[in-house]
Formats: sequence, C-alpha cells, structure tokens
Amino acid sequence: MYCRLYRTMDRFHLPEILEAAKSGGEFLRRFAWVPSAGSIGKCAFCLTRDGQPVKVQRTIFSECFYVMAMDELSRVTGDEEMQAHAESVMDQLVHWVRVDPSGLGRPRLSGDQPVNSMAVPMMLLCLVEQLGEGRAGVAEKYSEVGSWCVQQILQHVQRDGNAILENVSTDGKELPGCQGRLQNPGHALEAGWFLLQYAAGRGDQELKKVAVDKFLELSFKAGWDPEHRGLFYFLDADGHCPTQLEWSMKLWWPHCEALIAFLMAYSLTKEPGLLDRFTQVYDYTFSHFPDAEHGEWFGYLDRRGSVELDFKGGPFKGFFHVPRCLFLCEKLLDTLLAD
Amino acid sequence: MYCRLYRTMDRFHLPEILEAAKSGGEFLRRFAWVPSAGSIGKCAFCLTRDGQPVKVQRTIFSECFYVMAMDELSRVTGDEEMQAHAESVMDQLVHWVRVDPSGLGRPRLSGDQPVNSMAVPMMLLCLVEQLGEGRAGVAEKYSEVGSWCVQQILQHVQRDGNAILENVSTDGKELPGCQGRLQNPGHALEAGWFLLQYAAGRGDQELKKVAVDKFLELSFKAGWDPEHRGLFYFLDADGHCPTQLEWSMKLWWPHCEALIAFLMAYSLTKEPGLLDRFTQVYDYTFSHFPDAEHGEWFGYLDRRGSVELDFKGGPFKGFFHVPRCLFLCEKLLDTLLAD
Repeated sequence: MYCRLYRTMDRFHLPEILEAAKSGGEFLRRFAWVPSAGSIGKCAFCLTRDGQPVKVQRTIFSECFYVMAMDELSRVTGDEEMQAHAESVMDQLVHWVRVDPSGLGRPRLSGDQPVNSMAVPMMLLCLVEQLGEGRAGVAEKYSEVGSWCVQQILQHVQRDGNAILENVSTDGKELPGCQGRLQNPGHALEAGWFLLQYAAGRGDQELKKVAVDKFLELSFKAGWDPEHRGLFYFLDADGHCPTQLEWSMKLWWPHCEALIAFLMAYSLTKEPGLLDRFTQVYDYTFSHFPDAEHGEWFGYLDRRGSVELDFKGGPFKGFFHVPRCLFLCEKLLDTLLAD
Repeated sequence: MYCRLYRTMDRFHLPEILEAAKSGGEFLRRFAWVPSAGSIGKCAFCLTRDGQPVKVQRTIFSECFYVMAMDELSRVTGDEEMQAHAESVMDQLVHWVRVDPSGLGRPRLSGDQPVNSMAVPMMLLCLVEQLGEGRAGVAEKYSEVGSWCVQQILQHVQRDGNAILENVSTDGKELPGCQGRLQNPGHALEAGWFLLQYAAGRGDQELKKVAVDKFLELSFKAGWDPEHRGLFYFLDADGHCPTQLEWSMKLWWPHCEALIAFLMAYSLTKEPGLLDRFTQVYDYTFSHFPDAEHGEWFGYLDRRGSVELDFKGGPFKGFFHVPRCLFLCEKLLDTLLAD
C-alpha cells in the first residue's frame, strides 16, 4: 500500500513513506516464509513482533498478499531479484491452485470435497492484473491464467443467472446445503470490479455487462438491508438464516468494495443509475464508518449501524480495504472530473 | 445423551431411545476415527451422512465427546469391550495433553507458544468424573489426572483473585495482549459447576468456596449485561472490545451452564443469593430462548435479546447443552423439593 501510494500519488511521494515500505518489505522477506509448512513452505498468516511464525493457513491468501507486496516494492526500488521472487511465488500459487493442492497442507479427507470458492480465482486474477501492469511480457505469461480465473469466477453466477453464490462445485454446479446457498454480497461486488477492470482492459463488452448486471446489481439487491441500510455480511440464497454468527453485521470492507464497484461501473458506462448506487453506498458509509476523532474507520457495526467493535486494526482489519477504496475512488473521480 | 436419559430417567427408559443411541454409537464406532489424522489417528469433527470425514480439528474435543458417548453406551449395554475402548481413548487424550501434544497434528510453530486454555482441563475433568462414576477402580486410576485438571483450572483465577481469564501461560501467568485478557463468562460458569461437583464428591470446602466466589460470582458479575440482561459471549478483562465479532451476542449455552451452576451452588450451600441468581438467569433464559412453536431452543440472540439466527441445530449447536441443563436442573430440583 505504501509503495503504491508513493509510486502513483504526488502527495505520498515522500521519503518516510518509502522507508516504511522498505522496512516492512525487509521484515516480510526475512520472516514471512515458513519452510516447515506445507510441502515446500508457506507464508505465515501471523508473526510475532520479532518474526516468529504463529499461524499458517491452509489457503493461498497470505502468499497472495506477499506477492502483491513484493511486486509493488520491486516497482519502487527497481529490485529485479525481488520482482523475480514475486513471480516465482506466483508460479507456485498457480501450481497449487491448478495442479497440486496437496502442497498447501494436510492431505484432503475423503468427505472434504474440493470446492470452487470465489476467493481463490478472485485473488489470482487480482495478482495477474497487478503483475502484468505495464509489463507486456509478464502480462502475456499470465494471460491464460487470467482467462481461467475469469471463467472460474463466472461459474458463481447460478440459478439461471439470478444469484451469485460464494461456493460452487469444481464443475460449476450449486453445492448442497448451507455451504452452497451462502452469499457474500461484498465479496461478489469486489469480484464485480475485478471483472470490470479485466473487461475494460480488453474491451470485452459482454463481460462488462455480466459484471454490472450480475455481480454488481444482483449482489447489491440481495445484500442491501432495506430496513437499516448497509450491506449484510452473509446471506442465504433461499432466505434462510446463514450459519455465520456475524451474518447481519455491517462491515467496513463490503462497503469499500461497493464504492469502488459502482464508481468504476459508472465511469465505464455513464449509466446514471450506477452513480445513484454509488451515492447510496457513499451516504451510508461516510455517515457510519469514519471515526473522525482518530482519523480512521471503524470496522464492525451491528445490523442497525451502531459500532459493535471499536478497535481500528485487528486480526483481519488492516491497512488495506480503506486506503485501496479511497485511492481508487479518488483516481476514478479525478478522471471523471477531467472529462 | 440418549443413553444417560434412558439409564437414569424413567420417562425416557424406552426401547426407541435405546435403539437410537445404539444406532448413533455404531455409526461413531465405525466412522468417527480417522486413522490418517494426527500421528496415530484422531476423531473427525464432521462427517458426511455416509461416514466420510470432512474435518478433523487439532484439539482434543471431538475425542472427548466420543469418549463420553462410548462410556454412556457401554453403561447401558454392558459392553465391556466398548468400555475398555473408551478408556483407551481417554488414556491417549491424557497422553496428548500431558506428555506429547505433537500427536494432535502439525508441529507447533516457533511463535505459537503453548497456552493453558481453560477448555482442555475442563473437558478432561468432565471425563474423569464421568468415567469414574460408580466404578471405584476407574475413579482411582484417574484420580491424579482429576486433581491435575483442578489445579490447571484454578490457574485461570488471575489479577489477585479478581478475574477469570480464558487463556493463561503454562506456568499460570496472565498472557500479553487480547488473548490474555479474553473472558468467556459462560465457560467460566461451566468450569465452576465442574469444580463444585468435584468438591462436593470429596467434601472439599475450600474448593467449593473458590468455585462459588470466583468462577460463579466473578464471572456472573463480569458477564451479565446490565442494560439488556443476559450473558455476553466474550469480554475483555480491561473493558476493551474483544476481537471476536460475536462478542456481544447472547448464546443459549452460557445460559444453560449458568442455570446448572447457580442451582447446584444453591443446593450445596443453601445461600439464598445463589437461588436469586438462578431465578435471574431463569427468567431471562425462559423468556428468550425457547421456541414454543417448534419445541426447541433458539441458539443465538443479539445483544438486545432478539433472535438473530433462527436455526435449531448447526455446526456447534447440537443435542447437548439444553438437555444436559434440563436434566441436571430437574435432578437438582427433585432433590431440593424432597428435602
């Protein structure tokens, strides 16, 4: 995040921002990789202050954020070895996802069927787009992976195009039970703008339409709370109660992703209805999440919009969704205003 | 649960209850053990309908509930081989907890320091009490383990006797950070009645007093919501917000455990204040949790006491806390009324 701000926004092009980024990158490079985890090592999800690994997850997300960080840092410092390192971890991720998931950890149990969870192709697509930015050779190298990710994400449009489901079978069918009915509207909105960005970069009108009509509109209609406003965290596609205890809470990040999604969709289509959606989300978000006193956002509101957990960081809320949202929305608004 | 009801309550001494218990026991005996998990096998936390393992946890709790089930079933059927099997799994649990935790799963990471989590000695103590019931030889065999569990539980009385903390260091000190400050009032109340039962069985007046004054009274005072009534799920001993998103919810099981704890404490002490506490918890519990229409209890209320998740079973809410509470309270009340 520091690297991206330093590299692309004049007011953050400051030596102290660069130094903080380098210092964080050095810590990650030195301590994040845990050689004893998985079959060939994995990134820690959590480290002690002095760099001892506390927890390794059996997913690819820690590695994905590690690749994002190393790529951004290498762009700022021009460190080619670091860029090659980021690409080699990316190659390993692609191998785990598409060829051999056994390297991620314990062997899969016989009743634990593989699932196409939307988060996986989303994260990989995000990396494909980032690594390839301004580097034709790298973009070409990951072109087929990007297209595979898009197809995997599109498998989550289910029920004759009437619902986005968070988990589907590996052959693109709805799964039985509550796992199959689970919806995560903020996540689908985030997938929507990933697809929009991909479609815009390739002039793919059909994909752009699917992104807006399905991932944005359907998810917003399903996810918006008509009674207290704001986006629910989880929903069940049949209207049952989700099994996640926190399902009805209003979290910061789905609102960040919705802001990006609707502003990007408006920028690409100039459909006034999409700007109205942006305004609707904006009004709720900026009247509920920012904590003016401390200059940061609250993360977790209850269903009615009251702050339920008042810490600013935490095991999952870090320096990511809020600055990414503000950064992208500012860029989009600058472009719109310049037109 | 079926076995205990069949064995000890006339109105449940019915052939269909016994058949259901045997059928469940047979399924568990056949499918619960996953030989490929851990170093010598572990019990599955979740199985498919046809017995394929879906998930194995890196804790001892699935094995503990398995031992409870096998022990109860062996008492009803007189199956000595099954009783020996329950004891052999119990012996393995004691070995994992006290000698070699590495058998539970992956090797511990260097930053992941061992913790005395109250749940572990609580569950073991519960098994010690159950296995030894009416069997002098077995009680003698596990006597030292029981006394060790009590000492481990007592280490959770912290801050000069003013707080029960859920996690402490293995040498009985408060841990740094939010893990160390975490309180789970319903869990401490449950530990309280485990200690009370143990103390009553041995005429240990000092332990009885600690159980009532610390595990019951302190936990109730910390955990009871003065604004909307009911027991919070999690709290922070310094009054900060816990990091668990569901911290302020009112769950069925802490209220079940509180009912048992205060009624048992009143039965053993005849202190009127403890009966008042029971009444206070009873009034809240029976006006909020039972779903008269479906003859079961809701599990999850929000802070204000409205039903937030309306399913009756789920990944963690099963046929355990409610029937155990009703069973034990009925027994306690019968004895009180007969006095």
